Amino acid sequence: MNAHLSPLDRLKTLVGPDGWSDDPDRLHPKLVEWRERWMGSTPLLLLPRTTDEVSAIVRLCQEAGVAIVPQGGVTGLVGGQIPKGEVLLSTERLNHIREVAPDDDVMVVEAGVTLQRAQEAAAEANRFFPLSLAAEGTATIGGNISTNAGGTAVLRYGTMRDLVLGIEAVLPSGEVFHGLKRLRKDNTGYDLKQLLIGAEGTLGVVTAAALKLFPVLADRAVATVALKSPADAITLLHRAKAESGGAVEAFELMNALGVSFAETHMGLKPPIEGAPPWIALIEMASAEPGLAGRAMERLLTSALEDDLITDAVVAQSAAQAKAMWAVREGQSGAQKPEGAAWKHDISVPVSQVATFIATASAAVERLRPGARIVAFGHVGDGNIHYDVLRPQGSDEDAFAAMRDQGAKVVHDIAVGLGGSISAEHGLGSMKTAEALTYKTPVEVETMRAIRKALDPKRIMNPRVLF
Amino acid sequence: MNAHLSPLDRLKTLVGPDGWSDDPDRLHPKLVEWRERWMGSTPLLLLPRTTDEVSAIVRLCQEAGVAIVPQGGVTGLVGGQIPKGEVLLSTERLNHIREVAPDDDVMVVEAGVTLQRAQEAAAEANRFFPLSLAAEGTATIGGNISTNAGGTAVLRYGTMRDLVLGIEAVLPSGEVFHGLKRLRKDNTGYDLKQLLIGAEGTLGVVTAAALKLFPVLADRAVATVALKSPADAITLLHRAKAESGGAVEAFELMNALGVSFAETHMGLKPPIEGAPPWIALIEMASAEPGLAGRAMERLLTSALEDDLITDAVVAQSAAQAKAMWAVREGQSGAQKPEGAAWKHDISVPVSQVATFIATASAAVERLRPGARIVAFGHVGDGNIHYDVLRPQGSDEDAFAAMRDQGAKVVHDIAVGLGGSISAEHGLGSMKTAEALTYKTPVEVETMRAIRKALDPKRIMNPRVLF
Repeated sequence: MNAHLSPLDRLKTLVGPDGWSDDPDRLHPKLVEWRERWMGSTPLLLLPRTTDEVSAIVRLCQEAGVAIVPQGGVTGLVGGQIPKGEVLLSTERLNHIREVAPDDDVMVVEAGVTLQRAQEAAAEANRFFPLSLAAEGTATIGGNISTNAGGTAVLRYGTMRDLVLGIEAVLPSGEVFHGLKRLRKDNTGYDLKQLLIGAEGTLGVVTAAALKLFPVLADRAVATVALKSPADAITLLHRAKAESGGAVEAFELMNALGVSFAETHMGLKPPIEGAPPWIALIEMASAEPGLAGRAMERLLTSALEDDLITDAVVAQSAAQAKAMWAVREGQSGAQKPEGAAWKHDISVPVSQVATFIATASAAVERLRPGARIVAFGHVGDGNIHYDVLRPQGSDEDAFAAMRDQGAKVVHDIAVGLGGSISAEHGLGSMKTAEALTYKTPVEVETMRAIRKALDPKRIMNPRVLF
Repeated sequence: MNAHLSPLDRLKTLVGPDGWSDDPDRLHPKLVEWRERWMGSTPLLLLPRTTDEVSAIVRLCQEAGVAIVPQGGVTGLVGGQIPKGEVLLSTERLNHIREVAPDDDVMVVEAGVTLQRAQEAAAEANRFFPLSLAAEGTATIGGNISTNAGGTAVLRYGTMRDLVLGIEAVLPSGEVFHGLKRLRKDNTGYDLKQLLIGAEGTLGVVTAAALKLFPVLADRAVATVALKSPADAITLLHRAKAESGGAVEAFELMNALGVSFAETHMGLKPPIEGAPPWIALIEMASAEPGLAGRAMERLLTSALEDDLITDAVVAQSAAQAKAMWAVREGQSGAQKPEGAAWKHDISVPVSQVATFIATASAAVERLRPGARIVAFGHVGDGNIHYDVLRPQGSDEDAFAAMRDQGAKVVHDIAVGLGGSISAEHGLGSMKTAEALTYKTPVEVETMRAIRKALDPKRIMNPRVLF
């Protein structure tokens, strides 16, 4: 049928008049890279409403050899969601919360539901969905799964991988993988959903997921502490974990420069006075009234006595806690007015965090004297957003031109310490070529063999991953 | 070299004189199925000492087209580790604990280390490795990974999949996958270790793993409660989770018949008087002295008030707690003197546990009036070991002959409720054919495509999985 039509025309017919667009204004926000570094392009935006429509689209594209880029909330930081000539498949109309089942501690949501809506749906059922990240108002569940999103609650609850019980997806063949199980245990062959999680859209389009829910923990304590060094932060982290018995929800490190930018450029008052070289934001949560506060107090008292921290402020209200978090969440945005930056999202074994920061900072200083470091992030997971800003007043473009050189220096050090060049952002189109230089041939060949087995024409997000 | 030798002779040369055996006495314990239902066979037992030796063995077998069954502690319950003519590769000499790194909350152990030794190594470093199951003195880490083992601590800590940070494995090509990372976050392509976990040796031989460690929680409370129904158990479970803020370590259900067998055949005193129809063993743990006890007391007090439980006994000592656990751990062994049984390891969504037990029990009674049900297990994970024993005094063989019929009845009901026919034991050689009738063609085809891509000659555990 319609064999005389071009593949693009057949796709348009398939999804109906309101299911596609090639209007530049409509397309623009879906083509622009988050930091506005570059623009993508696509001949056609497709907006399927159902899993069956996604299936029909992918089947047609597989037959015709038309490449597809799947896209969620367009908040990805490595270009994995931006087409360069491929057909763009947006999940924005796959936006139903299919079920919230508190008796199973599960909710089933479609790929295009934003993370924030999913969190709210859980809360309405008196449950907690822990994934949390700065872009949660826009980022979608499908994108969170495809990039195995991390964020601020990984320390206690794990990454998105740990929060997914089941997945529904359209495979590169167009067939639907009906894996929306809500089982805590199921050992009946390879766990196919694990392949789709973090595959950045290269092994299919995630259309829905069954997500784990948790009890709401109403008793919370939030504090900010002043530290002399990242090494002391790691020692404190271990104490916090041992002392609280798993109650630590977040442990986030920031350096003085990042905190000062949040004040200068966003008007956010530093949570602790005196511009200490490092601060850490600690959150604990429990179900027993008073427990989080008591555990936090024990921790901070002994840490002050032992000179492990030099100061501490415990939030006395939800508003104060929120203000502390605002400084943490502003760490990335607050750098923008400072101009060009080399940004890195590395992880190392937790024991190597301090070594990484010291070694990388010395190497960066050698490469570009005067470059300024903003280091912050989920130190409890060994994950540091290690951003290098141009020396004050120096030339924007010259500094930006050294970005790849800088990345190599920083990433060589991370990998040398047993680390990763992309802890939580994925590789996308921006980091794939670089990752090839760090992965072993066995890993790359194995990934390629799997991909080829499932997508022989390589139509799914072809410029992303290996 | 040695091209004139047979593949088996070349394998012998490769591992050296103490690296192989074909002595029937040496082989016997490695060929007998756990419940002694049948015996396997092999022309050659290989006992490699190093990952490199495993690599050389697999490479040679791949070239020669010789099939291999990898084997750990021989405690599997579905025959996945028993060869039928294949070469047998035992991990028993890959038994080193390579490193315990408390600062990273990680330990690196080889595949042939027993689960108990791994637990002990963690404890010596003042850390906790939570995987726990009845066979832990014999079962090995490699087998635990290859079967994605579950056990009694899944409710709080997850299955083996959740406890593995990195894997070293020999792929079917003979190449070594060096994936012994100790990162909490690493998004740089497909997470290949996830494919190996639960692959039952069909995608390679796991040779070592980096495992997550946790703080030791010294404050513990263990109690046994009497219940009228499984439905009440589920309600109690939800209360326990909400009330304790994640402190529930285990929630195990047992029915009266299973408890009585533990008394009759193992001399284990029931932990609670009056032979209630159901009992549950609950364990809570925390780092704050007294917290687990207080949370348990709140839970039991309100449950008694609301008539959700009819009696409760809190263990007053470690010895009492151990005695309670002994009854739970004896549930499988204590059935043996009762003769033939149809055993099932199902899971359903937690909300469907009570429905499953009621529906399955009625269906079993229709199929074989008088058959006796022993139902027990990890109800907090929706995982029930649902065992059907022959009617008292009835013919052993006639009942055993109905095993497949019984499995179909029980498994149809579990799958109809969104469940699994193998929650934690895997499929092995015993359940693979049956699983084929429940899996969708898309799932089976996808698994086959992946397997074929990595092992085109299907030399790795060829009778296991699809």
